[in-house]
Amino acid sequence: MFWKKEEAMLIVAENINIRRTKLGNAMKERNAKPIIELAKSLKDAGADYLDINIGPATKGGPELMKWLVTSIQEEVDALLCLDTKNLEAMRAGLEVHKGKAIINSTDGSEKQLNEVMPMAKEFNTSIIGLTLDESGIPRDANERFQIAFNIMTKATEYGISPEDLYIDPIILPVSGMQDQVNYAIESIKMFNQLSDPSPKTIVGLSNISQSSPIELRSILNRICLTMLLCNGLSAAITDPLDKELTATLKTYDILTNKVLYAHSYLD
Amino acid sequence: MFWKKEEAMLIVAENINIRRTKLGNAMKERNAKPIIELAKSLKDAGADYLDINIGPATKGGPELMKWLVTSIQEEVDALLCLDTKNLEAMRAGLEVHKGKAIINSTDGSEKQLNEVMPMAKEFNTSIIGLTLDESGIPRDANERFQIAFNIMTKATEYGISPEDLYIDPIILPVSGMQDQVNYAIESIKMFNQLSDPSPKTIVGLSNISQSSPIELRSILNRICLTMLLCNGLSAAITDPLDKELTATLKTYDILTNKVLYAHSYLD
Repeated sequence: MFWKKEEAMLIVAENINIRRTKLGNAMKERNAKPIIELAKSLKDAGADYLDINIGPATKGGPELMKWLVTSIQEEVDALLCLDTKNLEAMRAGLEVHKGKAIINSTDGSEKQLNEVMPMAKEFNTSIIGLTLDESGIPRDANERFQIAFNIMTKATEYGISPEDLYIDPIILPVSGMQDQVNYAIESIKMFNQLSDPSPKTIVGLSNISQSSPIELRSILNRICLTMLLCNGLSAAITDPLDKELTATLKTYDILTNKVLYAHSYLD
Repeated sequence: MFWKKEEAMLIVAENINIRRTKLGNAMKERNAKPIIELAKSLKDAGADYLDINIGPATKGGPELMKWLVTSIQEEVDALLCLDTKNLEAMRAGLEVHKGKAIINSTDGSEKQLNEVMPMAKEFNTSIIGLTLDESGIPRDANERFQIAFNIMTKATEYGISPEDLYIDPIILPVSGMQDQVNYAIESIKMFNQLSDPSPKTIVGLSNISQSSPIELRSILNRICLTMLLCNGLSAAITDPLDKELTATLKTYDILTNKVLYAHSYLD
């Protein structure tokens, strides 16, 4: 039952992303200042990890990732979640990363699992496993569970502990795939039954409100997050600078008695 | 699992209460106008029932309740939830009420159950059963369950269907009784296992934020409501004029696929 989960949710900041024009330019120009400033403010806002998303990074990926990891960790006491499909860039980042990194991500296909899991073992990282595979995005909670089971089995095979594995059920936009929302939320509960200890769970929260009007995004994100927490979610990739979202998290921790109530708990 | 609950949550408007100065005066002066205006706005805001709280009503209770029920139902197409400890006033209200009323409330003490349950049967009403008894407010979820079981047994004895019974686990203020919040939320899930069909469940939502600063009340109410809904809550006594709260409910219904998503779903 959800309130037995004593640990606070892990926050992975989604903000450092090459697709954001300003940051993309800073990365291109190897201008570390705006990236470091953002990294500091994300840490101050309570981020446990910073996602470093450099996209497909087909050109110069390894150098870019290496530069980002060293530049940020020189100035900010932060752990990073390396986010790229370019496995050479991933390796280059892991080689210089200090502390326990997160690999974002592997999917559930045999091919990718066999490439990425050994890297997680080699560098003693955590790893995010997306519940999609060769056949695409799963259609319901059972298909998500099946892929999670495959990922879990492969992790065990490579000697990776369930506690270093974050299963991601793939939150899809409610505006286009409304019936999939329940399935993703439902599957969190099922993943928590996979083993004992169970793997951890993570979502890319803002996906839920992708393509919804801007004025709906925050409330969709917040209520989806509360529902996920009630189902035992361990981590979310989200925006720690969204004050309403962090207020939601703090209030949840108060109501579940994880943090002692004080009239000033939101300050 | 929570999303199997297809029905939308029942909203009982808490607003018509003799303790609110303006309404208390209107009741004393038998001035129906402000009460009817409020009742209309509550219906328009989506209330399914209007709670009519006349307090202990030791003097003139039956006349007051009778006047309120007839005055409101003459002008507004509304079902009422009669809220008083004065059982003569309760009976007077039920005698004139049109449609299915709710009795608010009985506790779990043998004495009160034997007085109030027959009234629910006689007038074919729904009834709210509070999980407290001779020994006071229960200390955990199991004690709540035990009292709920006693209430349920008594309802069955008097021929009242579980679907006409609303069990209330007693939400206590997080500012003073923080550890009780989990217990109350947890017990909702347990009540849903009492029988098949199970009794319904209800809470007095704003209790959660009683004694908290005004700027915290809405967020505490809203997140507590989402958590209760995730646990299968069927009804809440709350303020339908609180726009943030109704937005929470609407968003929950969207994310659980009860209502078809449209960009305009909050309008």
